[in-house]
Amino acid sequence: MIGKLTEDKVKAGKQAINELYNTGYYGRPRADILELTLVEAAYLLYKKKLEISSDGITIGFEDFFIQASKRQRFFELKYIVYKDLRERGYYVQPSVTDFRVYPRGGHPGKTQAKMFVYVRSERIPMHLKDLLLPHAAAVNVRKQMVLAIVDEESDITYYEVRKADIKGYMDTTIPIDKAFNATLLEDRVIVWDRSSSSMLYENYFYGKPLDDERLQLSLVESAHLLVQSILTIKDGKTGELLDTQGFSKIASSIDPDFKRKYSTYVDLRNRALVPKTGFKFGTHFRVYSTAGSSGHSSHSEYLVHAIDHDHKFILSVMSRAVRLANTVRKQMLYSVGTDGYIEYIDIGRIKM
Amino acid sequence: MIGKLTEDKVKAGKQAINELYNTGYYGRPRADILELTLVEAAYLLYKKKLEISSDGITIGFEDFFIQASKRQRFFELKYIVYKDLRERGYYVQPSVTDFRVYPRGGHPGKTQAKMFVYVRSERIPMHLKDLLLPHAAAVNVRKQMVLAIVDEESDITYYEVRKADIKGYMDTTIPIDKAFNATLLEDRVIVWDRSSSSMLYENYFYGKPLDDERLQLSLVESAHLLVQSILTIKDGKTGELLDTQGFSKIASSIDPDFKRKYSTYVDLRNRALVPKTGFKFGTHFRVYSTAGSSGHSSHSEYLVHAIDHDHKFILSVMSRAVRLANTVRKQMLYSVGTDGYIEYIDIGRIKM
Repeated sequence: MIGKLTEDKVKAGKQAINELYNTGYYGRPRADILELTLVEAAYLLYKKKLEISSDGITIGFEDFFIQASKRQRFFELKYIVYKDLRERGYYVQPSVTDFRVYPRGGHPGKTQAKMFVYVRSERIPMHLKDLLLPHAAAVNVRKQMVLAIVDEESDITYYEVRKADIKGYMDTTIPIDKAFNATLLEDRVIVWDRSSSSMLYENYFYGKPLDDERLQLSLVESAHLLVQSILTIKDGKTGELLDTQGFSKIASSIDPDFKRKYSTYVDLRNRALVPKTGFKFGTHFRVYSTAGSSGHSSHSEYLVHAIDHDHKFILSVMSRAVRLANTVRKQMLYSVGTDGYIEYIDIGRIKM
Repeated sequence: MIGKLTEDKVKAGKQAINELYNTGYYGRPRADILELTLVEAAYLLYKKKLEISSDGITIGFEDFFIQASKRQRFFELKYIVYKDLRERGYYVQPSVTDFRVYPRGGHPGKTQAKMFVYVRSERIPMHLKDLLLPHAAAVNVRKQMVLAIVDEESDITYYEVRKADIKGYMDTTIPIDKAFNATLLEDRVIVWDRSSSSMLYENYFYGKPLDDERLQLSLVESAHLLVQSILTIKDGKTGELLDTQGFSKIASSIDPDFKRKYSTYVDLRNRALVPKTGFKFGTHFRVYSTAGSSGHSSHSEYLVHAIDHDHKFILSVMSRAVRLANTVRKQMLYSVGTDGYIEYIDIGRIKM
């Protein structure tokens, strides 16, 4: 059977509809013609199910591959992913995204596609909106959104992109008679009094003991307690009390990410979760769904990194973050403020 | 016993030499005076082994801590690390670095210090030279160089910084009669011929099979083979043969890190190691000390990231890299070109 290379398609005759479409769901029948994408044609050529002619001359795999690569951007990447999906037993069709993939046991005409697969090169950074818009489009038609990232050695890693709605079991209100006293020293805040320290730490998992009497609070923790009037914070340098605005200004000068981190911190606390620093994991927060006894919880469930609207994912960095989260049995989430509320984007590796 | 706060020191009388220095190696005896750093004094005050007076008035822990924080930059960070080291049973003395730490069972006057400890805040990026110069100084006097990084919740992570001299067992010379043909397509190179593909892949662990006949090579792999005249590379767009310079120019335009990665790639191959992409780990390379059968090796031993001389470590990123390497039982190395050869810096978490 022979297909004709025409621009960025390969067109085969009626017989192809029977032999390729009806048995393997390759291409799209258009009246008496089967129209194949370059990727489909290359795969069929490799499988020796199709020959291809260009300007009346039959061409081999090498020539066709070079031709296709000239005619379609990222052709090799798409070919690699298409081949991989096909060899895993999925039926695949082209779509406005790169591929629509049918569920196992399903195929065009019988079932709906299950996933939209987007092929990306690890080299090319990805804007957050290039994640969110396709995600919204996929969700809208009840499809999974899957990213297939191809590295420089042509290994493929698949990620599913989802929104996560997370909740914990932590008391959010702290009953107090009178605000606790604390002092801002350089880049941390110290609560001096034993009973205040112990209440904040043992019952609500704020801060870390400096010793058996005093507690150190991070900037986001301090700001959160200050806003609720649970804490008064003295500036160690001037001896003066800081108001919310004054504290936030100093905190932002110490940590340029302060505001972004703070919004997420507050949102996580409002969701009855307990965020603590994620420094050891290279993220902003590790998050517990509850505090165990004595402020200690055995295992944090999430790693959360607060990003801006104009965030650009460096895919190798994202890959490391997700991989590290997985190896320590946590879920990697990116938080982003949207119209005044915080959304959590879950990027998780999946096995296809 | 009482010490007098004088500028950035606390000075105590002769009795202190007996009670604090001779028993616990706190401070430095200077004739009849024991001179303590602010950090030592704060710790002794906390342990109730010392009282402190300022301008004739005895001051408590809170006041002293605030005073000390004004007089010394990063006082709290240093205090937290000092306290941690002391409570782990080490004798600690100040030094041109932050601390000299004595080996377990050792102490000033009996043994040499074992480590130089540098205290850093996770917030402050670290220039490569701030790692290399202290490392050279430490090695020069046969000390371990240890970084103590304090996160925003005052957790400390200790890292030992070393140079690594790594070697593998891989054949480095490929015997060929005639160069293999390959084509550059967008951002990868394809070897079309079955026997060339299989030799490069099976015997020398280059590339990744596109299918059972053809091999895909990464840009660094291709450049390395091109330089050795093992490969000829045709530009898929123009059909012309590329020379080393031409290929390197295209590769650099595709991957801005190409040259840096290439130098390290060649050095690793010359060390009889097998570098493959480290994308899944967020680094430039994962490195095997040998290739197993069929080009497959069960476990890569190193993750290598090629950095520039003016590299600035974002400590949370470094922390993630090292942690991920550890969770997958690999060693995290940073490669840097120095006077024409490549050095490998090993930053490994240590338990103190």
